[in-house]
Amino acid sequence: MKKTLLLGLLVAGLGGAHAQTTTVASPDKNIVLKTQLAANGTVSYSVSYKKNTFVEPSTLGFSLSRPKTMLTQFSLVSIDSSTVDETWRPVWGEVNQIRNHYKALTLTLKDKAGIVVKVAFRVFNEGVGFRYEFPKQEHLNHFVVADELTQINLAGDYKAFWIPGDYDTNEYLYNTTPLSQVDAVAAAAKETDIALKSVIGPNVIQVPLMLKNPTGMYVNLHEAALVNYPVMHLALDKKTFTLTSHLVPDAVGNKAYLQTPFTTPWRTINVSDKATDILASKMILNLNEPSKITDVSWIKPQKFIGMWWEMHVGKATWEKASGKHGANTANVKTYIDFAAQHGFDGVLVEGWNEGWEDWFGNWKENVFDFITPYPDYNTKELTDYARQKGVRIIMHHETSGAVTNYERWMDKAFRYMQDNQMNTVKTGYVGRIIPRGEHHDGQWMVNHYERVAQKAAEYKIMVEAHEPAHPTGLHRTYPNWLANEAARGNEFNNAPKLGLVPEHETILPFTRLMGGPMDYTPGFFHFQLNQYDASRTTRVRTTLAKQLALYVTMYSPLQMAGDFPENFNKHLDAFQFIKDVPVDWDDTKVLAAEPGDFITIARKAKGKPNWFLGAISDENARTSVLNFDFLEEGATYQATIYRDGEGADWKTNPEAYEIEKMTVTNKTTLSIRLAKGGGCAISIIKQ
Amino acid sequence: MKKTLLLGLLVAGLGGAHAQTTTVASPDKNIVLKTQLAANGTVSYSVSYKKNTFVEPSTLGFSLSRPKTMLTQFSLVSIDSSTVDETWRPVWGEVNQIRNHYKALTLTLKDKAGIVVKVAFRVFNEGVGFRYEFPKQEHLNHFVVADELTQINLAGDYKAFWIPGDYDTNEYLYNTTPLSQVDAVAAAAKETDIALKSVIGPNVIQVPLMLKNPTGMYVNLHEAALVNYPVMHLALDKKTFTLTSHLVPDAVGNKAYLQTPFTTPWRTINVSDKATDILASKMILNLNEPSKITDVSWIKPQKFIGMWWEMHVGKATWEKASGKHGANTANVKTYIDFAAQHGFDGVLVEGWNEGWEDWFGNWKENVFDFITPYPDYNTKELTDYARQKGVRIIMHHETSGAVTNYERWMDKAFRYMQDNQMNTVKTGYVGRIIPRGEHHDGQWMVNHYERVAQKAAEYKIMVEAHEPAHPTGLHRTYPNWLANEAARGNEFNNAPKLGLVPEHETILPFTRLMGGPMDYTPGFFHFQLNQYDASRTTRVRTTLAKQLALYVTMYSPLQMAGDFPENFNKHLDAFQFIKDVPVDWDDTKVLAAEPGDFITIARKAKGKPNWFLGAISDENARTSVLNFDFLEEGATYQATIYRDGEGADWKTNPEAYEIEKMTVTNKTTLSIRLAKGGGCAISIIKQ
Repeated sequence: MKKTLLLGLLVAGLGGAHAQTTTVASPDKNIVLKTQLAANGTVSYSVSYKKNTFVEPSTLGFSLSRPKTMLTQFSLVSIDSSTVDETWRPVWGEVNQIRNHYKALTLTLKDKAGIVVKVAFRVFNEGVGFRYEFPKQEHLNHFVVADELTQINLAGDYKAFWIPGDYDTNEYLYNTTPLSQVDAVAAAAKETDIALKSVIGPNVIQVPLMLKNPTGMYVNLHEAALVNYPVMHLALDKKTFTLTSHLVPDAVGNKAYLQTPFTTPWRTINVSDKATDILASKMILNLNEPSKITDVSWIKPQKFIGMWWEMHVGKATWEKASGKHGANTANVKTYIDFAAQHGFDGVLVEGWNEGWEDWFGNWKENVFDFITPYPDYNTKELTDYARQKGVRIIMHHETSGAVTNYERWMDKAFRYMQDNQMNTVKTGYVGRIIPRGEHHDGQWMVNHYERVAQKAAEYKIMVEAHEPAHPTGLHRTYPNWLANEAARGNEFNNAPKLGLVPEHETILPFTRLMGGPMDYTPGFFHFQLNQYDASRTTRVRTTLAKQLALYVTMYSPLQMAGDFPENFNKHLDAFQFIKDVPVDWDDTKVLAAEPGDFITIARKAKGKPNWFLGAISDENARTSVLNFDFLEEGATYQATIYRDGEGADWKTNPEAYEIEKMTVTNKTTLSIRLAKGGGCAISIIKQ
Repeated sequence: MKKTLLLGLLVAGLGGAHAQTTTVASPDKNIVLKTQLAANGTVSYSVSYKKNTFVEPSTLGFSLSRPKTMLTQFSLVSIDSSTVDETWRPVWGEVNQIRNHYKALTLTLKDKAGIVVKVAFRVFNEGVGFRYEFPKQEHLNHFVVADELTQINLAGDYKAFWIPGDYDTNEYLYNTTPLSQVDAVAAAAKETDIALKSVIGPNVIQVPLMLKNPTGMYVNLHEAALVNYPVMHLALDKKTFTLTSHLVPDAVGNKAYLQTPFTTPWRTINVSDKATDILASKMILNLNEPSKITDVSWIKPQKFIGMWWEMHVGKATWEKASGKHGANTANVKTYIDFAAQHGFDGVLVEGWNEGWEDWFGNWKENVFDFITPYPDYNTKELTDYARQKGVRIIMHHETSGAVTNYERWMDKAFRYMQDNQMNTVKTGYVGRIIPRGEHHDGQWMVNHYERVAQKAAEYKIMVEAHEPAHPTGLHRTYPNWLANEAARGNEFNNAPKLGLVPEHETILPFTRLMGGPMDYTPGFFHFQLNQYDASRTTRVRTTLAKQLALYVTMYSPLQMAGDFPENFNKHLDAFQFIKDVPVDWDDTKVLAAEPGDFITIARKAKGKPNWFLGAISDENARTSVLNFDFLEEGATYQATIYRDGEGADWKTNPEAYEIEKMTVTNKTTLSIRLAKGGGCAISIIKQ
């Protein structure tokens, strides 16, 4: 169904004297989008949910630096509307099929110089996405964006889960305040654990931004399909609660170098009166393009362990000069042995290559070459050993921020991986970016991350990036791009000052994970981190049971067991859950969720009748009432419950856990006590 | 012979109360360098030639931005002196062996924070070179240069042959004025033919800078061995005639990111009372490192023709959409035929690859991929055809300034060349540089040009770069780096406004060519350039005979015959000189020279007894008296003289030439009339 209304004559006839409005409702009619072209040519939109207007009229437009012009006043050329309802199957995911159902509305606009800009809206039951489209046209070919002038004009002083706007990092702790109390500069100033900060200003915050209004409406703002464009942050007017797009600049202050035809990323607004709907939404994936990789047979979700946490806690080092180099051949063999013994797919090895004596911090360009192992690391021997044991070594490409250098070596680096049986790479971007003056979140780097996914696919390599720009659902388009860090990960438990907080994992799914899977590296079984470095005062701020639950609540097709074998070996009964939990799913049920407080999710294993459930709490103890009605009618299951033990508490007694087996059916209801900073993981195996 | 004087105790004893001076003279005693450490810790040097101090005390130092400090006040740790006298053989060149004979003086200095800086001077008979050395040390590892504070404090208001200081181009016409009348901004403003200018300021000019003092002393300022450092321009104080180094900044305003041990490029001061000595000097080559390429068997000086001038004059186009695409298979075959028929080694083909519809001017990154030919250009067919004809196609890698993109493709691009029998590449850097904010002359690009030479060597490929930073003798270190443009080339004859001037080629050897060979593309046989594009008002501003003479006066191991076959075919008798003239030499005699007026040079063919002579004039006619006493005693030679014909004049009658044969010996003297903008070329073949 597609309708076009050509307004050329009509607009001319009206002489622009009256405002022109158009509305479109979501398929379930709960969401209504209204667009308006004012008499002065200003274009705006507003959004209501169940008749409650939560995005007040918000203007749209651009400022270009080449050609030097403001694209803020338009006449209407045409309005197109259509409905799409289709279903597609992701290569991997939380569910095995996804319905893409929306009403579309596209305004074709023309500015006074004849430049044509389209604004395309898609209204789903879950929310609204919109983007700008610059078609190929006579009056615009190459152009440079000075600013995008998109507003999201919120109806009130909503409670916000926010991190400071920053051109280079998204590894902040979340702040929970009303919008009127945002102070990004003050929040960032406390964050001494972050090595490189480029804070934008007191009123600029990041997306994904989770909001809750006083009536219990949940709103989530993000972007989808960030391609060839800088990251969007949001500048907040604390009086009007208007958020305006703030794009990340390049080295000379421009935002984006574009050429028609071009479409911006989608600006997304999820909305529901149920927090669980926000987590279940597939709108952002639906707004991304289908896979560009045709043969996906080599792409496999996977679990891995790694030679990395030893370095974080000071047991070993990345660099060799210390005398306690972690990634030596003998050590790595013990990891391969452990992985093989417990059925892991991969072993990540960090610190295997020359350069760690002198990496980030100096804006040095030629740090690593990605193909030269330390003398005590025998690539060939380990390749053979891993193959013999049925395990893959996962490559680590830390760039030290020197991306020009990485791009020069990338082909050779990927070929080296291919030659040595490696098909997954963890990339890293610690430190200031080279090209100097560019930022992690700028257009140039956004293009780089995509180039890595593309080039890796040429070599049949899967990718997870650390310190990249925030994900925006591009794993649909590049399913070999399994996961990213792009937020404060579990590793921050070891950071010297703030570390993590127990609520952190109840916020991340509402924020960072809206854009895609995270390599959060759960699975820490040892909680005091001063074992090897007495100066460490921070520690893991969960219980052990919660570490298990994270494998379900923090979705990723690439899950690490973060701790090292010595610590797993102390709790092999609990470790069994990590061994059992899948990384690919047929179905997902978000059973309960409140950002900052708790999350309970159940997922059905891909191609199997078994379910896995995770429930986590914040710093408060609480009782989680679990209703197993998602199970198959009439079937019986053996549930193995890994829960906080008597007296468990993230602070005083994190290692107290209990493992209990019982039979459950779809009639079962269970009340489970979650400790402070606690959680519960359950495997539910069909009998 | 090496002497070290340790001054630690002595300086302490003196308490810095007195100035400490040291002098060192050139081997022939004509040049005396004097260094002084003042009581306040300031280090300076001065230089005299034949007792005439032409560089007055000039201070040395650095400003660092990390660590934030001024390196301008020192105490003296030690003084080392030595003498070197050695001879080496270049892979190719103007002469087959080069004597490296100098007196060295190195001051080891320490600043108040303990940072050690050495200043190394070498005093040759031809001039002085000096550089800073930052040894590996406790107090300095990584450091960032804010400014280099090197002065060259000239003794008077010398006549200067200068071009405006510019971060991105050196393609200016030369201005000849006293230093007191330099106005770089005004000079640059006239230059509308240059697409991209980044003029620094009214008083900043470029090196190589040619100077002449009122008593007839010639001074040339340049730099040698520009490695991992930005280009040095010179900021002029028009009252004191002090020149201070002005380094090209990066995207964020820093000058250089360095790590100890590090040595800066050499700052060079050539001096003589004979202009011919300046041209004959090998000091800059001597200050460069020996070849880093061990197997040089594949490196060959060469002559070539090319599919390029057709595009400049509008007969054909680089891009395909025009309908008159030059680089199609059939056209290129005619070039291969012509090259084979006349004994040329190579055929340059520009516009062979996709992308020319949309190249420079838009700061677009992904313009070319360097491996995708236009559909009408059959690489394989032409590879086979060229091989069969004994000719090599010369590859063209125009980057459009998008260097990040080129670096990503470089390996594939060089492999494509290897696969298709190509062993020489012409690179190009037209337009604004990407990484955006970087400049053609900045440290990042200087490193890029070197990377290209290094990577090309891996593939046994020879390089000539267009639009690079000025050469500084690095062809000694990378003998596969045959030539560069890096100045206003013969192609500017076709530029719409200023074009070239007849004196241009009498200045270039004193300026641009001090750093190394230029791909000047002489050999234009058709002078009115409005044949295919009626809008062209500029034209070639030499006579035809002068075009021939340039093959001798403008030394390069890579010489193009710039025009296209159709025009050569009209003057095949004159073309014979281009066929005969070698591109590699046993010996060179600079017979006469005055910058801006005339140059006469004779060269002996490598491994043969034959000589070739070129004489050129500026806009004035003049008589050149040629003394053949450089020929072998007792031998007879047949000289073929290609000279301006009766009534020849670059403006009114450029195509008038005469060819005369005569027998000459080392007793012969000839008076040859050079026309306005004219010249004379002579081949002297031993009988």
